[in-house]
Amino acid sequence: MSATPTREDKFSFGLWTIGWVGQDQFGGPSRAPLDVVEAVNKLSEIGAYGLTFHDNDLFPFEATDGERTKQIERLKAALEDTGLVIPMVTTNLFSHPVFKDGGFTSNDRAVRRFSIRKVLRNIDLAAELGAKTFVMWGGREGSEYDTAKDVQAALERYREAVNLLADYVTDKGYDLRFAIEPKPNEPRGDILLPTLGHALAFIETLERSELFGINPETGHEQMAGLNFTHGIAQALYQGKLFHIDLNGQRSIKFDQDLVFGHGDLQNAFSLVDLLENGGPNGGPAYDGPRHFDYKPSRTEDYDGVWESAKANMRMYLLLKERAKAFRADPEVQEALAAARVPELSQPTLNDGEGYREILADQSAYENFDADVYFNGKGFGFVRLQQLMLEHLMGAR
Amino acid sequence: MSATPTREDKFSFGLWTIGWVGQDQFGGPSRAPLDVVEAVNKLSEIGAYGLTFHDNDLFPFEATDGERTKQIERLKAALEDTGLVIPMVTTNLFSHPVFKDGGFTSNDRAVRRFSIRKVLRNIDLAAELGAKTFVMWGGREGSEYDTAKDVQAALERYREAVNLLADYVTDKGYDLRFAIEPKPNEPRGDILLPTLGHALAFIETLERSELFGINPETGHEQMAGLNFTHGIAQALYQGKLFHIDLNGQRSIKFDQDLVFGHGDLQNAFSLVDLLENGGPNGGPAYDGPRHFDYKPSRTEDYDGVWESAKANMRMYLLLKERAKAFRADPEVQEALAAARVPELSQPTLNDGEGYREILADQSAYENFDADVYFNGKGFGFVRLQQLMLEHLMGAR
Amino acid sequence: MSATPTREDKFSFGLWTIGWVGQDQFGGPSRAPLDVVEAVNKLSEIGAYGLTFHDNDLFPFEATDGERTKQIERLKAALEDTGLVIPMVTTNLFSHPVFKDGGFTSNDRAVRRFSIRKVLRNIDLAAELGAKTFVMWGGREGSEYDTAKDVQAALERYREAVNLLADYVTDKGYDLRFAIEPKPNEPRGDILLPTLGHALAFIETLERSELFGINPETGHEQMAGLNFTHGIAQALYQGKLFHIDLNGQRSIKFDQDLVFGHGDLQNAFSLVDLLENGGPNGGPAYDGPRHFDYKPSRTEDYDGVWESAKANMRMYLLLKERAKAFRADPEVQEALAAARVPELSQPTLNDGEGYREILADQSAYENFDADVYFNGKGFGFVRLQQLMLEHLMGAR
Amino acid sequence: MSATPTREDKFSFGLWTIGWVGQDQFGGPSRAPLDVVEAVNKLSEIGAYGLTFHDNDLFPFEATDGERTKQIERLKAALEDTGLVIPMVTTNLFSHPVFKDGGFTSNDRAVRRFSIRKVLRNIDLAAELGAKTFVMWGGREGSEYDTAKDVQAALERYREAVNLLADYVTDKGYDLRFAIEPKPNEPRGDILLPTLGHALAFIETLERSELFGINPETGHEQMAGLNFTHGIAQALYQGKLFHIDLNGQRSIKFDQDLVFGHGDLQNAFSLVDLLENGGPNGGPAYDGPRHFDYKPSRTEDYDGVWESAKANMRMYLLLKERAKAFRADPEVQEALAAARVPELSQPTLNDGEGYREILADQSAYENFDADVYFNGKGFGFVRLQQLMLEHLMGAR
Repeated sequence: MSATPTREDKFSFGLWTIGWVGQDQFGGPSRAPLDVVEAVNKLSEIGAYGLTFHDNDLFPFEATDGERTKQIERLKAALEDTGLVIPMVTTNLFSHPVFKDGGFTSNDRAVRRFSIRKVLRNIDLAAELGAKTFVMWGGREGSEYDTAKDVQAALERYREAVNLLADYVTDKGYDLRFAIEPKPNEPRGDILLPTLGHALAFIETLERSELFGINPETGHEQMAGLNFTHGIAQALYQGKLFHIDLNGQRSIKFDQDLVFGHGDLQNAFSLVDLLENGGPNGGPAYDGPRHFDYKPSRTEDYDGVWESAKANMRMYLLLKERAKAFRADPEVQEALAAARVPELSQPTLNDGEGYREILADQSAYENFDADVYFNGKGFGFVRLQQLMLEHLMGAR
Repeated sequence: MSATPTREDKFSFGLWTIGWVGQDQFGGPSRAPLDVVEAVNKLSEIGAYGLTFHDNDLFPFEATDGERTKQIERLKAALEDTGLVIPMVTTNLFSHPVFKDGGFTSNDRAVRRFSIRKVLRNIDLAAELGAKTFVMWGGREGSEYDTAKDVQAALERYREAVNLLADYVTDKGYDLRFAIEPKPNEPRGDILLPTLGHALAFIETLERSELFGINPETGHEQMAGLNFTHGIAQALYQGKLFHIDLNGQRSIKFDQDLVFGHGDLQNAFSLVDLLENGGPNGGPAYDGPRHFDYKPSRTEDYDGVWESAKANMRMYLLLKERAKAFRADPEVQEALAAARVPELSQPTLNDGEGYREILADQSAYENFDADVYFNGKGFGFVRLQQLMLEHLMGAR
Repeated sequence: MSATPTREDKFSFGLWTIGWVGQDQFGGPSRAPLDVVEAVNKLSEIGAYGLTFHDNDLFPFEATDGERTKQIERLKAALEDTGLVIPMVTTNLFSHPVFKDGGFTSNDRAVRRFSIRKVLRNIDLAAELGAKTFVMWGGREGSEYDTAKDVQAALERYREAVNLLADYVTDKGYDLRFAIEPKPNEPRGDILLPTLGHALAFIETLERSELFGINPETGHEQMAGLNFTHGIAQALYQGKLFHIDLNGQRSIKFDQDLVFGHGDLQNAFSLVDLLENGGPNGGPAYDGPRHFDYKPSRTEDYDGVWESAKANMRMYLLLKERAKAFRADPEVQEALAAARVPELSQPTLNDGEGYREILADQSAYENFDADVYFNGKGFGFVRLQQLMLEHLMGAR
Repeated sequence: MSATPTREDKFSFGLWTIGWVGQDQFGGPSRAPLDVVEAVNKLSEIGAYGLTFHDNDLFPFEATDGERTKQIERLKAALEDTGLVIPMVTTNLFSHPVFKDGGFTSNDRAVRRFSIRKVLRNIDLAAELGAKTFVMWGGREGSEYDTAKDVQAALERYREAVNLLADYVTDKGYDLRFAIEPKPNEPRGDILLPTLGHALAFIETLERSELFGINPETGHEQMAGLNFTHGIAQALYQGKLFHIDLNGQRSIKFDQDLVFGHGDLQNAFSLVDLLENGGPNGGPAYDGPRHFDYKPSRTEDYDGVWESAKANMRMYLLLKERAKAFRADPEVQEALAAARVPELSQPTLNDGEGYREILADQSAYENFDADVYFNGKGFGFVRLQQLMLEHLMGAR
C-alpha cells in the first residue's frame, strides 16, 4: 500500500488546524493549546512537508516585538531541525474585536489603515520564512444587513488595499504571490467574494492581476451547494489555482472543516483525479501544496488530533491510487469514449472555420437530424458514474 | 399611490413567463397555451413596455420556415399596434432532446455545431426586431456526474462558440450585446458558470469581452444561498450588469420563479434601492429593462396569470417608493452616518499615499488603539436594519 | 402607534441573548459580560415581562454552592424590584468539554448520569423561581460521523432520562412542563431530533407524554429549509406548542440568531398572524411567552444590544398590527373565500358519512368533471399573497 | 463477487422510475414510453423481485374501465410469466390539473372527495394484486404562500381522509398497511408533513395508527439537509419503517432521484449497514422491499436505463458486502469500543434505579470529575470514521 505520505506529496497543514482547541459558538475549549515546536516536530514525523500559519497562530495579537521575535525564532529552529517548510502564510484580520466589521473593508477607515499595516508586516515575515503564497481570507469582510454595507465601495476599498500590497511585494522583490480565499458566509451573514467565481472576477480588476490567484476551500464552495471539482477546473482553466484548501463538508450548513474525504467522498475522488491527472497530458494539473484546512473534531484529545491529521493524507493517497486505476482501466476508457467525454476536447469549429464557413455547412443545420436524439444517442453517463464509484470502492 | 406602471418604468416580461402552461416535473399543463398576439396586447394594457422570448416560445423547434415567418410577422404587427418593444431575445438550447447534454458544451460535437447555427439564426431575428441584448442561459450545459464532463474542455468550447458569435455581431454591425445568465443547478445536477461570479470571471477570457455582460436572476443566485443584492453590486462595480431577471425564491430549493418580491422581501428592497438609488450621485445605477422572469403559479387560471404579472410591477414600484422614502429620512441618514456606511466611500489611503507613506504613519499602527473596539465603537447596524424594515413595512 | 411593548405582551428574553459577548467560532468576545441584575432592570425598563436562563448563564459551571446561591439571591432581589418573572429555565449541557459527545446521549455513561443530576438540580431551581416551562435543547446530542452514534440506542437513552425527569416533577408536585427544542445541526454535524416533527414524534414514546411539548425556534427550522409557520401549525394541531423561540435567519446556513423579523419577513408575518389570530375563533392560538432567542450582532456595543432587544418586540408588535388589519380587510376576506381557504375547514365527508356513503355518491367520482380544472378553476393564490404583502408593507 | 442480485434481495422498482421518459421542468421527453409488460420482463431478467406503480403509471387518468382492465390483465399475465410480485401500490394525486392544490387537502372540497374515491378504487386494485403496502405521497398537499393554506385545517382533512381509508381496509379484511412518504418541497413551495419526523408525529393522531407507518425517501430527507440514516433509525425505533425509497441526492437542491449510492456515498453505507446489521442481534433491522425510487438520467437511452437499474442493485450489494466486512473487522470492533459506541446501549440508570437513587449516588455528581474531559477522554471518532471509509473504499 503506497498510502504512506512522503515529502514529495507536498502535504501541508495550518497551525490553526492541528492546534484548534475546540472552542466553538456553543462551547469552550476541549483541548490545551499546541506549541508550534511540537506541531512542527509532529508534522515532520507523520510525513507532512509544510506548515502554514496566521500571524496570530504563532504569537498573540497583543504580543510585544520581543515575544513575536522569540516565537519566530523558535519556529525557525524547529524548521531547521526537521526540514519542514513554510509554503504559505496568512494574516488574521478576523478574531480581534477591532475587525468586527472587517479589515480592508471595515466601514471604519482607521481599521482599514491598521489592517493594511498588519498585513504589510506579515508579508515581510512570509518572505523571511520563504513562503511562496500569501493567502487572504476576508472572513469578516461582509455584512448581516443589506443597508449596512455599500458593496461597490467595499470592493473598491479591497482593491485599493491589495493593489498597494502588490506594489510592495513587487518593489521589495519578494517571490510571493497572493491567493484570495472565498467563503459565502460565517462568521458574517454574507461575505464579500462569496465563491471562487466572484474572486476570479474581482482579480481581473486589479492593477497587478498576475500576482493574484485564489485559494479555494472544499467546504466553502460546498456551503453554497457548488461542485468543488467544477470550480477548481474553472480556476485551472483561468490559470489562477495558486493554492488549495482541502477538507470535508456534508451538505449546506455551518462550516464543518472535516478531514479531507470525510465529507462528499465522490467529489473528493473527482477532485484528486483532476489535480493529479487533469493536466493536458494526463499528468498533474496542479503541483502546489496539498494543504489541509480542517478542524480535528472537538470530541478528540491529542491522540485523535494526530489520527485526524494522518487521515487527511491517507484519504488523499487512497483517492490518488484509485484515480490512477480508474484512468488505467480499459473499460473506463471505453466508457469515456462512448460518453464522448474526449470529444469535448475537439474544437467545435473545423480548422480555420469562422461564422461564414459554419453558416455554409448544410450538414451542421439544414441536414442535421435532431430527432435521432429522441429515444437514442444515449450518453451512457450512468454507466460511467458506476464505473467511477466501483473504482472508488475498490470493487474493480 | 404611484404604484401604477408606465412605459417609462421599462417593465418587460418573457413570453415564456405569462405563457407558462404549468407543466412541471410532477404534472401536466394546467393552462392552455397563450398566443403571442394576446400576450403583447395584454402586456401593453397592463403597463409593460417590452416582451422578450426564446425562439421556440414564438414558434416550435420543428417549425418550417413558413410557420416561423408567419409567427414573426404576427408578432411584429402586434408590436406596431401597441408600441411594445423587444428589448431582449434568447435562444432555447435546452428543451429538445438533442440538447440533453447541452448546446455549446455538449460532449457531442455535431450538437455543438447545430447549437451555434441555431443561435446565429436567432441573432439575426433579435437584430431584426431591434433587441439590444441577447441573453444566453446554458441550462443544459453541465453534468450530473463528475467524470462525465471535462469542465476545462467545456469552458474552452463555450469560449470558442461565443467568440464566434461576437465576431458575427461585430461584422454584421448589429447593435447587440450578450448577457450570460448563470444558474447553479436544475435541470442539470451542476451547471457550468453556476453563479454570476463565475460568469463574470469567464467573460474576462473572451476575445471581445466588452460585448459580454451578465443577466443575473434573483432566484438563481439565491438557490446557492447568495445575497442577490451583493452580487448585483459586484456586477455593477465591474460594469457588467447588461440585463436583469427579477423574480422570487424562498430559500435553497428547486427554482421557484415566484413573483418579484414574493420571495426574500428585504433583499428585494435592498435590490431596488441599489438599482434606483445606488448610482454615484444617488440616482439609478442601472437603466436597462426591469425584466420579470417568473412563473405564474400552476394553481392559477388566466385571471390569476394577469394578476401575477401586475403583482411583479406593483411590488417593484412599492419597493421603489419605500426605498426613496428610506433615503430621504433624516433619521436614516443619521443612522447611516453613525454606522459609518458613507465612510467606506472614502479612500483608505490619503491622497498620493503609497506603502512607504502608510508605513511611516505611526498613528495607523504603532499608536492605534485596537482595544477601544472591545465593548465600544459599536456600529449600530441593527438599528439601521430596523429603520430599513420599518420603511419597508410602511411604519415610518 | 401601539408598537410599544407592555407586560401583557408577554415578551421574554434569554439571559444568554442580551448577554452574548460576541465570541464566535472565528473570534473572541467584542463585549464585556452583562450582570444579571442589570439585565433584569434593563429588560423591565424596555417593557419585557420575563427573563429566562441556563443555569450557567447565572453562575459558572464550576461555581461553588455559595457562589451559586449568591447569584440566585441577586436575581430574586432584582425580580422583586422590577416585577419581572422567570417563565422558563433551561440547563446548559453543551458548553463544558464534559459534554463534548452530548449529555443524556453521550456514549460515555458517566456523563449521562452526571447530566441527569445537573438537570435535576436545575429543575429544583426552576420550580423555586416559579418557571412553568423547562426547556431542553440537546445541542451536543448527535454526531459528525454515522458510525460513531447508535441512534436507536441514543433515543432510548434520551427517553430513559426524560422519563425519570417527568417522574421527579410529578412526585415533587412541580407545576412545570418540559419543552424539547429541536435543531438540525451545529454545533454537531447532525443533531438528534433535528426538526420539530422528529421531536413531536419522539414525545409520543414517552411515559408521561402529556408533560412534554416542544419549544421550536424560527431559525432552527429554517436551517432545514422548512416553513416555520407550517411547523408551528402542526405543533398547535397536536397540542404541543408549549413555548416558542422567536428570532431571524436568512436561508440555509449557520445559526444566525438575528432579531425576530430580521430574517424571512413574510414568514414572520404569517407566524404572528397564526399565533395571534389562528385560534378556532380567530383569537390567539398561543398564549404563552413570546420568547426571543437571538444574538445581538457582534458589531454592536451595549447601546446596540438594547436597540436590538427593543427591535425584537417592535417587530412583533408591528407584525401583529398588520396581521390584524389583514384579517379585517374585506377585500382580503373576499380573496380568502375566492381561494377557498375557509372551505378547507369544512369536513370532506358529509355528516355521518363513511366509506360506504361516499362510494355511493356518484357526484363525487363518476359524474365529477375533472377537466374543468384545466384552464379554469384558478385559486387566486397569487392575488392573496399580493394582498398579504401589501398589508405587510403598509401599502393598504 | 456476490454483487449479483437475486429475488431474496427483495429489490423492487417503481414503474415510473424505469419508465420515466425524461420530461422535466425545462424540456420534453427524451425517451419513448415503456410498456408495463416489457418492464416486468426486463426487471425479472436483471434480478428484481418486485414492481410497484401509481394507478396512472399503468393506465392513464382518463382511461375507460375497459382500458383500465386491459392493462391490469396484461400486468397480471406478465407477473405470472415471470414470478415478479407487486409489493406496493400507490395513487397519483398530483399530475392532473384537478390536483393543482392537492388531493386530500385541496382547498376545494369536491377535489378532496374525488381524491378519496380515486384512492379507494386503487386500494381495491392493490389488494387484488397482493400488495402489502399502500404508499401515500402527497406531493401537491401544500402551498407556495403562507396565507393560502390553513395548515391546521389541512392536517385535519388529511386525518379525516386516511381514517376513512383505514376503516375501509379493516372492514374489507385487506392485508394492507399504509406508508406515508414525506417530502419538504417540490412541486409545491412547502409540502405538508415535510420530513419523516413530521409524518411520524402525525400518525400518532390517527384512529388506527397501527396501520400507518412511513416510506421515507433518501433524497427527500436530504433535500432538507437531514441525515437519512439518522431518520431511518428513528423510524425503526418507533416501529414505523413500513417501506423505504432508495435513491441518490447531492446536497440541498431540486429532487435529483439519482441511482442509490450515486449521491451521498458514505450515508448510503451507514444506511445499508443499519438496514442489514442494525437489528438487536446484529441481523437485519428491516426485512421489507429494497425499493428504488430513482430516475434514469434524461441523457440516457434505454440501454442506459437498464444499466442504471442494475447500478442501483449493484450499489446496494457492494455496500452490503462492505458493511459486513466493516462489522467483522476486529480493529473496527476495538475502535467502536474505544469510542464507547456499545456503551450507549447500556442503560444510564442502574437496575431499578429511579431519581431517588441517582440523587443519592455521590459518584454521579458530587465526586464526578468533569475536568478530566478537558484535554483527555477523547472519543476517537475520527479514527472510526476513517476505518469506515477505508472499508467503504475497499482499502482494508
